[in-house]
Amino acid sequence: MSDPVIDHLLSRQDDILQDLNALLRMPSVSADPAFAQGMADARDFLSEKLTAIGMENVQLLDGGGQPAVYGDWLHAPGKPTLLVYGHYDVQPPDPLDQWVTPPFEPTVRDGKLYARGASDVKGSTIIAIEAVASLLAVEGRCPINIKFFLEGEEETGSPSLRSLIERYRDVLSADAVLSADGGRASREVPTINTGARGTNGLEFTLRTADGDLHSGRYGGAVRNALHEMAMLIASLHDSEGRVTVSGFDTDMEQPSARQRADTAAFPFDEAAFLQEVGATGAGDPAIAMRERITLRPCLDVNGMWGGYTGAGSKTIIPSEAHAKISIRVAAGQDPKRVADAVVAHLEAHCPEGVSLSFDRVGAGSPASTLAPDHPLVQAAETVLLRESGKQPIHVRLGASVPITSIFKEMMGMDTLMFGFNLPDEPVHAPNEFFRLESVPMGLRAWPQILRELAAFEPGAFRS
Amino acid sequence: MSDPVIDHLLSRQDDILQDLNALLRMPSVSADPAFAQGMADARDFLSEKLTAIGMENVQLLDGGGQPAVYGDWLHAPGKPTLLVYGHYDVQPPDPLDQWVTPPFEPTVRDGKLYARGASDVKGSTIIAIEAVASLLAVEGRCPINIKFFLEGEEETGSPSLRSLIERYRDVLSADAVLSADGGRASREVPTINTGARGTNGLEFTLRTADGDLHSGRYGGAVRNALHEMAMLIASLHDSEGRVTVSGFDTDMEQPSARQRADTAAFPFDEAAFLQEVGATGAGDPAIAMRERITLRPCLDVNGMWGGYTGAGSKTIIPSEAHAKISIRVAAGQDPKRVADAVVAHLEAHCPEGVSLSFDRVGAGSPASTLAPDHPLVQAAETVLLRESGKQPIHVRLGASVPITSIFKEMMGMDTLMFGFNLPDEPVHAPNEFFRLESVPMGLRAWPQILRELAAFEPGAFRS
Repeated sequence: MSDPVIDHLLSRQDDILQDLNALLRMPSVSADPAFAQGMADARDFLSEKLTAIGMENVQLLDGGGQPAVYGDWLHAPGKPTLLVYGHYDVQPPDPLDQWVTPPFEPTVRDGKLYARGASDVKGSTIIAIEAVASLLAVEGRCPINIKFFLEGEEETGSPSLRSLIERYRDVLSADAVLSADGGRASREVPTINTGARGTNGLEFTLRTADGDLHSGRYGGAVRNALHEMAMLIASLHDSEGRVTVSGFDTDMEQPSARQRADTAAFPFDEAAFLQEVGATGAGDPAIAMRERITLRPCLDVNGMWGGYTGAGSKTIIPSEAHAKISIRVAAGQDPKRVADAVVAHLEAHCPEGVSLSFDRVGAGSPASTLAPDHPLVQAAETVLLRESGKQPIHVRLGASVPITSIFKEMMGMDTLMFGFNLPDEPVHAPNEFFRLESVPMGLRAWPQILRELAAFEPGAFRS
Repeated sequence: MSDPVIDHLLSRQDDILQDLNALLRMPSVSADPAFAQGMADARDFLSEKLTAIGMENVQLLDGGGQPAVYGDWLHAPGKPTLLVYGHYDVQPPDPLDQWVTPPFEPTVRDGKLYARGASDVKGSTIIAIEAVASLLAVEGRCPINIKFFLEGEEETGSPSLRSLIERYRDVLSADAVLSADGGRASREVPTINTGARGTNGLEFTLRTADGDLHSGRYGGAVRNALHEMAMLIASLHDSEGRVTVSGFDTDMEQPSARQRADTAAFPFDEAAFLQEVGATGAGDPAIAMRERITLRPCLDVNGMWGGYTGAGSKTIIPSEAHAKISIRVAAGQDPKRVADAVVAHLEAHCPEGVSLSFDRVGAGSPASTLAPDHPLVQAAETVLLRESGKQPIHVRLGASVPITSIFKEMMGMDTLMFGFNLPDEPVHAPNEFFRLESVPMGLRAWPQILRELAAFEPGAFRS
């Protein structure tokens, strides 16, 4: 069945790629002030593009850091309003000498478009814009109300996003977020991301004496802060890597039958996953690795230090040791309660005469979850099934996505990630690429999902 | 019974203290080039003093660093030759604002002479020089042959002592060393130091993956270098602090009945020892703490680090962790064998898939020991018993003394420490002091020990 909008998009592929290449040539590195011109150029480019395709109220939204580019089309009364998220900033290109072709000179090799930002996330951002452009060009209207929000600080951790939302709460208000960032989980099967683990963290200091002691004078007589720290950290996991903290996972929602089935159906090669990074597996062997990293909580020490760490030797008995811990929480868990359980474990395992002080115990962010019948999920499922002929697998991310958490927390909006990049595209490394085959897939899928979303009542998006 | 030499010394106490004060005013800090003039002044002062009291061949011995001051009197044929050791350099005076009176303005308060270097070790060095001076002045001769060796680098770890000995081996050759450094162990009972623990050290790196991993993507699936390091370090001691390394103490000489009796007789308040530094006890509770820190080996982690140690958080799974370990070995132990036992323990406890690399495993220095019937010990025992009316207690140091090890290793000479400072005099800290009561004690003891040593055949000093 012919679809004039999709036909229009596919016929314009060369122009779209030229546009994408123009954007990729702008070195919009948000982390480094030396790239300020590249950032400004990318903002101008996107502002002009949004205006050209028929967006209104095109403007820069300034939260105190790198401004975001905004534009809307709000002429579908009674229909849902979607905030379409993308970002125009990219990771720094270093180390430059490891790029086969320069990072800001887009080059096609073997069906892959190499450039910094091609996969993360200028490619998918352009796809989203072009989908709306063709809907307006061919049909004169969009099936839903659209607000483009193209951030400039994603790669630096969105430091001013909260203050930006405070300032522009009304401008950004929508029923839900459809994100061009966060891509496909697999090249082999269609996937829909239905959530992410939450996080929390804490930092603590352990003390065994008033100051460092001479190991000749005191060695054999006193507690050593590093020995005590090692015993405490070692007590957090068993020898196979299971977390041993009492109550660590008691409040997690047990994975549903569908989640476990989808996790099992997801193509995931444990050995290859480890081998790729030279790692060895750890964790409860009774639970599949893919399930452990997406549906279960985990605890990692991110940093640990104490005593003399310079060159050569210094024969001291250190009196102080430090550790930073991060926690990933599963759906249903209260991240503060989990952190408190870790604190209680450390205090219970700390011997008499050793003092512990907690420098930071965060409130954390809970896991984010899209219910399987959420309109965003239903719309994506319909489109992906139609396009691929396969039932999409629901997947969850092991890492939380800050912007998703912030939109949910500050504005109550759920987010569906609908980008078309793939996990093997080296997004924060040299030779980042975006598969050219993903471009027509995205151009076909985006107008369809906007149409599917139009079938829902605006109120149906709020869970 | 009157002793003209001792009478002469005691009658000259005011002059001796004035001389000591002159030396204390010279800021001879070896660690800091800004104090080069103070170092030169102290060398000039001591060279002139040795010449003035009748020493011959007075010269500076240059090993490539701070030169030592040397002078000899070798007119006692057939009698033993003793190298009399002292040092003229002092620790840096920082933090200056914690001194009640300036560090290089000697001041008496409450029977204590406050100045940087008063206790460590200009006071005892001047006592040794004055004892020889009075013997020569009153009797016209010394009972034994004397070689003064006054070092200028003790406080920086004697970095050029080995090359200095290589260059001046004949000049420094003697039957034994009598040191003004290394003092009394107790104000309450006379003590003789009969040895020190030896040392060794190692450093290692543990790796779990090719690089740090994202804790969201890999958390729950892989080994974390800091968890593995914690498990390894925790495995080195049991929960009471006993070393659990197989073979760690198998080659140690069991303490003799006399050593255990002396250790028990030594006034040592375990609770006060710990409380003074805010520490908690650890170690085998079946063995007295004083015995643990002097007669038994020990193992301490001096530094441990890995992952992110900066401000805030970084949610990585670290792939690398590092640790530095120092070992103190007891009499009889081969320090290399003990370090190898620790390496073997770490390798045996390292799980598959985790790699260990040892960046440094030292050869170490064995414990030093003076036999209870060594001429140095017998001479000291006779003098201290006569002076105090109490049988001296043999003690051993928990820390090794580098110069003692070097003299033994390179020249086969044993050392007796016969300084008169006390352990509660804050030698590397602000408000260092030397008790004035120690001055006449030293002035009485030194001529007597030189006479006692004259009773032994020169060959009797080599064990």
